[in-house]
Amino acid sequence: MDEQRGKDRTAGKNRSGKGIDDLINGVRNGNRAMLAQAITLVESHASKHAEKSQNVLNGLLPYTGNSIRIGITGVPGAGKSTFIEAFGQHLCNIGHRVAVLAVDPSSSITGGSILGDKTRMEQLSQDPRAFVRPSPSGGTLGGVSRKTRETILLCEAAGYDIILIETIGVGQSEVVVRSMVDYFLLLMLTGAGDELQGMKKGVLELADSIVIHKADGDNKQKALTTKEEYNQILHFMKPTTNGWEVRAYTASSYSGEGIKELAGTLECFIEITKKNGFFEERRKSQLKEWLYSMIRDDLERRFFSHPKVKKELPLIEQNVYLGKETPTKAAREILGIYKEEGD
Amino acid sequence: MDEQRGKDRTAGKNRSGKGIDDLINGVRNGNRAMLAQAITLVESHASKHAEKSQNVLNGLLPYTGNSIRIGITGVPGAGKSTFIEAFGQHLCNIGHRVAVLAVDPSSSITGGSILGDKTRMEQLSQDPRAFVRPSPSGGTLGGVSRKTRETILLCEAAGYDIILIETIGVGQSEVVVRSMVDYFLLLMLTGAGDELQGMKKGVLELADSIVIHKADGDNKQKALTTKEEYNQILHFMKPTTNGWEVRAYTASSYSGEGIKELAGTLECFIEITKKNGFFEERRKSQLKEWLYSMIRDDLERRFFSHPKVKKELPLIEQNVYLGKETPTKAAREILGIYKEEGD
Repeated sequence: MDEQRGKDRTAGKNRSGKGIDDLINGVRNGNRAMLAQAITLVESHASKHAEKSQNVLNGLLPYTGNSIRIGITGVPGAGKSTFIEAFGQHLCNIGHRVAVLAVDPSSSITGGSILGDKTRMEQLSQDPRAFVRPSPSGGTLGGVSRKTRETILLCEAAGYDIILIETIGVGQSEVVVRSMVDYFLLLMLTGAGDELQGMKKGVLELADSIVIHKADGDNKQKALTTKEEYNQILHFMKPTTNGWEVRAYTASSYSGEGIKELAGTLECFIEITKKNGFFEERRKSQLKEWLYSMIRDDLERRFFSHPKVKKELPLIEQNVYLGKETPTKAAREILGIYKEEGD
Repeated sequence: MDEQRGKDRTAGKNRSGKGIDDLINGVRNGNRAMLAQAITLVESHASKHAEKSQNVLNGLLPYTGNSIRIGITGVPGAGKSTFIEAFGQHLCNIGHRVAVLAVDPSSSITGGSILGDKTRMEQLSQDPRAFVRPSPSGGTLGGVSRKTRETILLCEAAGYDIILIETIGVGQSEVVVRSMVDYFLLLMLTGAGDELQGMKKGVLELADSIVIHKADGDNKQKALTTKEEYNQILHFMKPTTNGWEVRAYTASSYSGEGIKELAGTLECFIEITKKNGFFEERRKSQLKEWLYSMIRDDLERRFFSHPKVKKELPLIEQNVYLGKETPTKAAREILGIYKEEGD
């Protein structure tokens, strides 16, 4: 960083602030290289980048929030990438600027397959109206979700008015994505019943719309039947968004059928939820949840990484399993040790 | 406490341990007055009782765990009390000793209606083989759940081999009850579809069995139809317990029809889950969850009750809502203040 100190002074204000203004302006002007650089900054694990990235974000905050944030998940093989390509392309064609992000807490293990294969969204990533960003590599779910939330803000400041967030569906990633989007799409295939049984519990309840994907060729008629089956089931479920009825639709990214209609459904969803106030309400509660989850994560991280706790907790836990002491007493013990020692 | 010090010495061991041994022995001998006193102790908010109650519990721990813990919830009007009376009575008749508890985090507000009306389970509460305990009054969900968990242990040590835990279904109480029981029953009424829509999200997914209650008289045929409708829906859902298929049943507490069969289903459930190891596995993970939730609760309680945090957090939160700073920066700020100040 030393060789850049001269430039730091030019940018003024802050010793560690080299390029902060450059980044803010660059992102604001929709400069893709600058946007990519700013995202790399918020994705950095290095603590020296933490303050800088927060300064960039705070400078950009007034220009954020004006997008529609859409989460997309699906069963394996549902064709999420091809769908995002087709749907994203259509949204660009009707005048939007589309950013595509991903939440994949497992990518540290799998090597980051999600969106990692550049060829997967070839058309969309070459479209000047779109911005496709691979998944941030690794880290905890909490870390990944902070990065994705901040990347959403950066993309919004850069002028993208639709943010598509793909989830690979590992662990709790759908719940996390639901907590950062306005609208949540679930991609399914034909064969509703069996599929649903294989699906993780609770995912169906998160969706605002269900898409029976690959509804083309021989599969089309089956997809229509599946759609009706889903609508039957959905009838028995409580919607996730106030004032919005969850329905199933069919679509094909191959033939393009149904894609336009989904954009219409989205528009309708936004109109209704903005009118009934739920859009703003959800945004506010998402901000609160973000703040509180960061606080909780930090309190726990500090506790569980404390040397004494790390040493004593496994023994205390074992005593609980062996029925030697109650969890209440065990918790008091370990908390007593932690409190005594301080941070 | 001073006037009791003499007796303390008789009991030996521990200055604050007056009556600890008496309570332990009394509970062990199934003395109902002693059991009630021990429960009052674990329910106490007074910190001076905390250590004593933990000593009593630890003395009794070797005699706990040998019951079947059953959670019971239902839509309003489903007749939980009459069902518990009928089901509990039957279990007593076939040789069990039954304790009935309740989880009702709202009882501080509503004045403790749940199980509070002594006349509600008149027969059962007069049965020498049963023990009916009203809901602990008030407190947070975390507090109520600790008390209930510890009361379960006390009842087990007193020889009750079936513990029925009623939930009034407010807030997250079903999730909490699910986290402390082996088997979870959901009581419903006829008119499946509409009922289900009115039900809280996710509750159906917690159940091991569904009971269509009040299946008598004119209602019987309708209940059978409803049962089939539920079985249709359940077919599409992932079971909550490994190796156990969730099914709907009909029962009437009025005519007694179906009650015996439910006891048979329960027996079958226990046999299967003990054989496949899930029973023990769930018990262990429940202990772990109990321990960790107590730790988390305490870390958060300490943070949120800290004077500086209480003063600064609302302002910082407001800044986040107004878009003046990111949640990440806000979290760092408030955590910085907390860390600086210490506890």
